Amino acid sequence: MTQVGDVRTQPLPPGVSEADFAQALDGFTAALGSGRVLTSEHDLAEFRDPFAFATWDDYTASAVVMPETVEEIQEIVRIANELKIPLWTHSAGMNNGYGGPAPRVTGSVIVSLRKMNKVLEINEESAYAVVEPGVRWFDLYEAVQSGGHKLMVSIPDLGWGSVVGNFLENGATYLPYGADMSAQCGMEVVLANGDVLRTGMGAMPGNRSWHVYKRGLGPTLDQLFMQSNFGIVTKMGVWLMPEPECYMPLWLRVWNEDDLEPLVETLRRLMLDRTIENVPQIWNTIALASVISSRAPWYQGEEPIPDPVIDTMARELEIGRWMMRFALYGDESVVDIRFRKIKEAFERIPGAEVWGQKHTPDEIPGLEHPFEQVQGGFPNLGINQMTGWYGGEEGGHIGFSPVAPLTGREAVAVRDLLRGLVEQRAGLDYAAVLIPINARSFIHVTMVIFDTKDETQTRRAYDTSKLLVREAAKEGYGEYRAHLDFMDLAAEQYSFNDHAYMRFAETIKDALDPNGILSPGKQGIWPKSMRPADNGR
Amino acid sequence: MTQVGDVRTQPLPPGVSEADFAQALDGFTAALGSGRVLTSEHDLAEFRDPFAFATWDDYTASAVVMPETVEEIQEIVRIANELKIPLWTHSAGMNNGYGGPAPRVTGSVIVSLRKMNKVLEINEESAYAVVEPGVRWFDLYEAVQSGGHKLMVSIPDLGWGSVVGNFLENGATYLPYGADMSAQCGMEVVLANGDVLRTGMGAMPGNRSWHVYKRGLGPTLDQLFMQSNFGIVTKMGVWLMPEPECYMPLWLRVWNEDDLEPLVETLRRLMLDRTIENVPQIWNTIALASVISSRAPWYQGEEPIPDPVIDTMARELEIGRWMMRFALYGDESVVDIRFRKIKEAFERIPGAEVWGQKHTPDEIPGLEHPFEQVQGGFPNLGINQMTGWYGGEEGGHIGFSPVAPLTGREAVAVRDLLRGLVEQRAGLDYAAVLIPINARSFIHVTMVIFDTKDETQTRRAYDTSKLLVREAAKEGYGEYRAHLDFMDLAAEQYSFNDHAYMRFAETIKDALDPNGILSPGKQGIWPKSMRPADNGR
Repeated sequence: MTQVGDVRTQPLPPGVSEADFAQALDGFTAALGSGRVLTSEHDLAEFRDPFAFATWDDYTASAVVMPETVEEIQEIVRIANELKIPLWTHSAGMNNGYGGPAPRVTGSVIVSLRKMNKVLEINEESAYAVVEPGVRWFDLYEAVQSGGHKLMVSIPDLGWGSVVGNFLENGATYLPYGADMSAQCGMEVVLANGDVLRTGMGAMPGNRSWHVYKRGLGPTLDQLFMQSNFGIVTKMGVWLMPEPECYMPLWLRVWNEDDLEPLVETLRRLMLDRTIENVPQIWNTIALASVISSRAPWYQGEEPIPDPVIDTMARELEIGRWMMRFALYGDESVVDIRFRKIKEAFERIPGAEVWGQKHTPDEIPGLEHPFEQVQGGFPNLGINQMTGWYGGEEGGHIGFSPVAPLTGREAVAVRDLLRGLVEQRAGLDYAAVLIPINARSFIHVTMVIFDTKDETQTRRAYDTSKLLVREAAKEGYGEYRAHLDFMDLAAEQYSFNDHAYMRFAETIKDALDPNGILSPGKQGIWPKSMRPADNGR
Repeated sequence: MTQVGDVRTQPLPPGVSEADFAQALDGFTAALGSGRVLTSEHDLAEFRDPFAFATWDDYTASAVVMPETVEEIQEIVRIANELKIPLWTHSAGMNNGYGGPAPRVTGSVIVSLRKMNKVLEINEESAYAVVEPGVRWFDLYEAVQSGGHKLMVSIPDLGWGSVVGNFLENGATYLPYGADMSAQCGMEVVLANGDVLRTGMGAMPGNRSWHVYKRGLGPTLDQLFMQSNFGIVTKMGVWLMPEPECYMPLWLRVWNEDDLEPLVETLRRLMLDRTIENVPQIWNTIALASVISSRAPWYQGEEPIPDPVIDTMARELEIGRWMMRFALYGDESVVDIRFRKIKEAFERIPGAEVWGQKHTPDEIPGLEHPFEQVQGGFPNLGINQMTGWYGGEEGGHIGFSPVAPLTGREAVAVRDLLRGLVEQRAGLDYAAVLIPINARSFIHVTMVIFDTKDETQTRRAYDTSKLLVREAAKEGYGEYRAHLDFMDLAAEQYSFNDHAYMRFAETIKDALDPNGILSPGKQGIWPKSMRPADNGR
């Protein structure tokens, strides 16, 4: 019925008959109304991997449903169980570089949660918010401001993302609460059987501590719903930081490629002793140049940009070979002491410079540089132009993002490994952003940048990423998050004791979701019915 | 065979025949040797609830096995599966106030991990240790010191406890890494089927970030093994804090019962802005008096000590109506600024005083007060005499420990509720220690203190605790940890959506442990075979 006057060209879910699929769509339409059940090619276009080449159709949804309530999600799950329809949850954001909102299994029905976009609570006294999955960083910031709350949200670089979606993907944010997802507290989840679960203290009716105490009685379940397909998260508590007296965004610039080692060594000590409390970013020349420039003015060769040209870019763009952004927050007298200590420590590296200016919180929206806004909790889209590096109208990127210990030795080792692979095996420029996610480890975001209109270059980028997954794992570096196109490959690298981790995840999956309807294949976790026969398990 | 010359008086596991149990003991003995399989009444005496009345036998083990390796644990689990023997894991510590090492199910075989007591690694550069479950706080401190590492361990009040055991029970520790178990990173677990699982980055063979990055690819499982019976943890990473330039233990004393409200309000603001970074403790007069005094000199009446007498104790013992211990850590210049700020803030409360002295880390072992040692990471047994309050040779206590938001209003509400119940319904003195486990919530440890030689008083204490569980839950306060004797009752209070949380936990339990061998009943989680028929699930 939903197809009257609108010929469906989308694929069916695997093993589902045309009749059953039509019945499912009827059920969804009865529950949500036709306006919130999308099936046309036009409507589905925005739910594919935005950077995949136009003719590729590996990860294509059959429909999109847009619930507005928990009850509607329960009804969607009920129908999916009855007719064995695979669902794929998408909160609201972009997930660019990791496959976008596209489903792992072609023919899945995307459950888009963008219409569940209410900020349910902001508690000024205990400094937290409770949000639905469709709430974007822009929305949460706006709610905090319009309520007159003197609170800051730890945000990522792009404000269009979903708060809940970012947490569920283990995404980074950059204020002091950005370390290790420390800001998440308490959630509500719809399970595959339609049950509504509340985690932590929320498991007690009327409990007052759901969003202020991170655990409950018995095992804490929140992390089980991150990077998994065990449930659909419908509410989440997020801790907010009281506005400090003083905010001081800082810059560190060094001029030699190998200054990375003393930079990281110094940084670890300053993070371990809590002098630096936020989550910094360390950009190499090409990554930062890709935000403020493009490749053509600097180099026209097909091969990777040679070091002397990188040095020219570093000098003329005044961005150095490595540039770190970070910030201080607190009482002005403490910020002053810490700034002096930090400057003195980093400037022992020959040629290194540290600089920055102090601000009051109300000055943050007016700051010129998007990085200074982001670290001050003011969401924007400043770095979104990065992907135009190789020219062409529409740039794309894949994020290959392994984790390593935060030591100078490891930083250099990972850099050498990945730079070698990216340049020598793939012939691409090496663009890297190192994100120290806590005082002991960093995520090495390797930006594999390409022109999405060039199929050969795009294919090479996807293939390169897979090469990186394999080669990095051999050296002991695993991805913190995997692109749709190599989720299985990335998960396979976690193979200790005959894949004990994945076998455990599969046991949980089968117990919670016997019909395998929730996001099959997510992070390599397949339900029994879709598990490859040859995976030896 | 183990019973030759040693008549076993202990109970059998439920539903297990004498022959099968003998076969299990033979198997354990074959695997471990007879010296590490204990069955005599004398040997088992130390594995009961130390504060239960002498003749009670509710929670009695049938045997204790003491593995030294992961392989031995796997063999124990294999035998237990074959013969349906319930196991009960105990790391090494006391668990006093929560039932000690005793098993929930009478006849269980205790797996004591005290002989797995190796500190496997101390990494100075990234500031972490890897420990086995038998490692006590004393042992870890000693290993750090003897290695010459300039690192501090966030420890609890009693140094005899197991590091792993404390983490697995969500126990508090009191240095800056004490908030919300923030120090735990990566574990190894033996599952009910004998499989060895490594969590987080440990799931990748040879990964370098197992104990520096808190997550992995896919759902993070660490918290699933805390306060649960889903596995036996055999290794755990623990983050350590680099020694600061300056350590300043502090005291705050107030003189009026209702000063609690402004005290907590001020504290929350100072914790939210990270001026106070450790986990404080707020003691009421009776709780603190019980450490340094006993009841008889102050009051001889049977009824709860009246307020005027408490005021006398507060004055003469110089401990106030509430006394808070806390500490500063960092560069001396920052500590100085923070101390002035803290002193100024709290001393707005009429009569309040804040004081303390600065120390270098090497002075900590020589500090006089055990509290000042504990907050400096030097383990001791200083507060262990608390339970002699009611006289008698051997005092006992039960910890009733609900969680509440860290606001002045809530602190007063919880105090009023619990003081009323303890004094008026149970006729006991109200001894309380409030532990702000993070900037937003606190655990209200209610010390129900009694003389273990007095059966009536002991019974009343156990009954009182159950009353507290029920009444606190009605007001929205749930326990963070439950005594063996009311684990089920405490878990039942977490009943949102027809006990969705417990039904979820049971689903996981049944999938991972179909024979129900691992710690049945732990935190109210029962395997299918032992689940009460009348629990409606």
